[in-house]
Amino acid sequence: MTYRMVDLIQKKRDGKAFAKEEIEWMISGYAKGTVPDYQMSALAMAIYFQGMTTEETAALTMAMVATGKQLDLSAIPGVKVDKHSTGGVGDKVTLILAPLVASFGVPVAKMSGRGLGHTGGTLDKLESIPGFKIEKTEEDFIRQVQETGLAVIGQSDDLVKADKLLYALRDVTATVDIIPLIASSVMSKKIAAGADAILLDVTVGDGAFMKNIEDARVLARTMVDLGKSVGRQTIAVLTNMSQPLGHAVGNRNEITEAVNTLDGKGSPAFREFIAELAQLMLSLAGQEKSIPEILEHLDNGKARAKFDEMVLAQGGRTDGLTEALKADYQAEVKAEADGFISAEKAMAIGVLAMKLGAGRATKADSIDFEAGIYLEKKVGDLVQTGDVIARLYSNKPITDELMAEAKAAIELSDEASSHKEILEVIR
Amino acid sequence: MTYRMVDLIQKKRDGKAFAKEEIEWMISGYAKGTVPDYQMSALAMAIYFQGMTTEETAALTMAMVATGKQLDLSAIPGVKVDKHSTGGVGDKVTLILAPLVASFGVPVAKMSGRGLGHTGGTLDKLESIPGFKIEKTEEDFIRQVQETGLAVIGQSDDLVKADKLLYALRDVTATVDIIPLIASSVMSKKIAAGADAILLDVTVGDGAFMKNIEDARVLARTMVDLGKSVGRQTIAVLTNMSQPLGHAVGNRNEITEAVNTLDGKGSPAFREFIAELAQLMLSLAGQEKSIPEILEHLDNGKARAKFDEMVLAQGGRTDGLTEALKADYQAEVKAEADGFISAEKAMAIGVLAMKLGAGRATKADSIDFEAGIYLEKKVGDLVQTGDVIARLYSNKPITDELMAEAKAAIELSDEASSHKEILEVIR
Repeated sequence: MTYRMVDLIQKKRDGKAFAKEEIEWMISGYAKGTVPDYQMSALAMAIYFQGMTTEETAALTMAMVATGKQLDLSAIPGVKVDKHSTGGVGDKVTLILAPLVASFGVPVAKMSGRGLGHTGGTLDKLESIPGFKIEKTEEDFIRQVQETGLAVIGQSDDLVKADKLLYALRDVTATVDIIPLIASSVMSKKIAAGADAILLDVTVGDGAFMKNIEDARVLARTMVDLGKSVGRQTIAVLTNMSQPLGHAVGNRNEITEAVNTLDGKGSPAFREFIAELAQLMLSLAGQEKSIPEILEHLDNGKARAKFDEMVLAQGGRTDGLTEALKADYQAEVKAEADGFISAEKAMAIGVLAMKLGAGRATKADSIDFEAGIYLEKKVGDLVQTGDVIARLYSNKPITDELMAEAKAAIELSDEASSHKEILEVIR
Repeated sequence: MTYRMVDLIQKKRDGKAFAKEEIEWMISGYAKGTVPDYQMSALAMAIYFQGMTTEETAALTMAMVATGKQLDLSAIPGVKVDKHSTGGVGDKVTLILAPLVASFGVPVAKMSGRGLGHTGGTLDKLESIPGFKIEKTEEDFIRQVQETGLAVIGQSDDLVKADKLLYALRDVTATVDIIPLIASSVMSKKIAAGADAILLDVTVGDGAFMKNIEDARVLARTMVDLGKSVGRQTIAVLTNMSQPLGHAVGNRNEITEAVNTLDGKGSPAFREFIAELAQLMLSLAGQEKSIPEILEHLDNGKARAKFDEMVLAQGGRTDGLTEALKADYQAEVKAEADGFISAEKAMAIGVLAMKLGAGRATKADSIDFEAGIYLEKKVGDLVQTGDVIARLYSNKPITDELMAEAKAAIELSDEASSHKEILEVIR
């Protein structure tokens, strides 16, 4: 069957739902170049206004998967569990969670992405480890997981060709924040990457794509249903991204916090959060563990050992990972009054970290691994005038303007407030 | 000032209005090629859903005018009046109205377009006159109007570059039927073409872009306000396109009806319609004429003489224009019952004429000037079983399928109905 793209655009514009065949035709055509960008962007905008049904989103996801290679992980015994975050500030979860889960014998074969704008990327953080390589052939990737139970590498260029094209197009046509398109983009990559089960971390709040819990819930539900409909066990966790995750923001800075956490030295709230995610990920692989059993692996060196195995297998060094940041400029943000910290705005802190050198404003920018921010205090903490709340690190001078941005990102209050990391679990 | 197109797309997507400078930036960038098609099509779709204010539409129109040359008609004395139709079936109005108005000494310097799909184009009809040339340099065009008071030529490629690009893009991205974009497309061309006053024929109904009178009224009001806001006297007429205009549909077929009308042999209803439009066009040029005074010029040969002057000035022959169509195949559609004709569906008849060879399905198609349809009876006429309602002409065999389409386009009723040509005048 063949169609005219203009008729399909009009169909969506007029609020009608596509048939599976129509979606397959347009996505394969887009990947082949017979459906041009200018028609696809008009369609994306029509989808912004008219939405897509669950059936359409599932068809779109599988049509995108079909435009690239699918990884076959069957040579790795056991239930392979993948994990994905919709992005945030200070999000070093994968760096801790992957070795922690692998330390229980659950194989983790994960492909990660780079950071852009105010959000960091796991690949960039791993590359701040001297010698660490994020590129592997499919065979080497599978062999590493067979041998060590863990590998985290860069997304293969061979997977989901249509997603790469569509993502770049959406980025420049104001069609990024469309739930069915976000869902199909994430899930097509996870499905093509071959895991049996998927844990989705859907970030919510100021520093996330999803600014409110209602939208995040719809996105999570869409992705969980999508995963299940194609035979992948899927759980989504809505996590709070109103303040950065943990204390460190940056690249080697986050590696340091991750390694400290793997060494049993993480802050109690952050340890608890990681353990809860690990519990869900283990349950997806059929292992029911208690929180104390999981925390045990952070305290007895098993998780750290698994992390080191991966780093060595990928060419990196395992010593010196928690050394102080080597930045020419440092500055302290101090409390200007007594009170409880009521906000540490994730978006502003993410943008500030980028300006300090830790992130990219455009894809062509390079990253300063030693730049970053360390939050000594987090939301809910009581501070007195003069206490250091945050430390800034950069190899460029830290201007008054940047200091003002840092101060504006932090708010104090007379009343105590609490901050919950996990807001909801959607199964 | 410079902008990012993605921010402007998002602004419109989110329902905000553009500043004049933003519109100027994006339209000049689009004409220069620095704003790509894939961003412009996403914007057009956002405008479909969010609309544009009167101020935005005026700014868009003038920004489009600025992307090309503007004709200077000041060398032609008097008030130059232009006329535009939003397109229809059997619409030979320009062929009669332009010489009729010119015969009263009002200069008519008109640029016309070609037909596509179910609508015919004035240029194609004129080219069915042996030898007639629709291309002229600007100097020759102005000289012809100075010498004869009348010229109808093809749209110059130098005018309104952005409109040509945008129109082609809208055609393939389901963003044609957007009132502010239609209004700015029409008016930018009329303004660039240099006339002092403009009569707009906004067709309404089955065979027109505007299917209902409410939309047509909004489009007409938008264009009239636009014209006035840039100092061009503008009047719009909403005309009924539920059945074809007049009796002939095709190219030489319509020339024949036009010439017969110019020779005083038009049907009474059609003569009356043309005279009313001429009265409005003359009033725009400051001449108040009665309907009988205007009809007089159809009966005393003055309008026909002016038409012949134009045809000769543009290289055409003035004899043999009303000869019978030279088509290899002819067929008659006859009444299968007694009754009043209650419908002759303009869209279906336009599409049928195209299939007979009189029109283009795509821009690359060529036209058979001798193909067409002649409606012996019109809506409201009483017919008896066996009466010929329509005659079809083609140089390809007229299949049973085409005959069935012709029959399906015509409806009979036991009750008399009336058909009004001019529905409303908007000043």
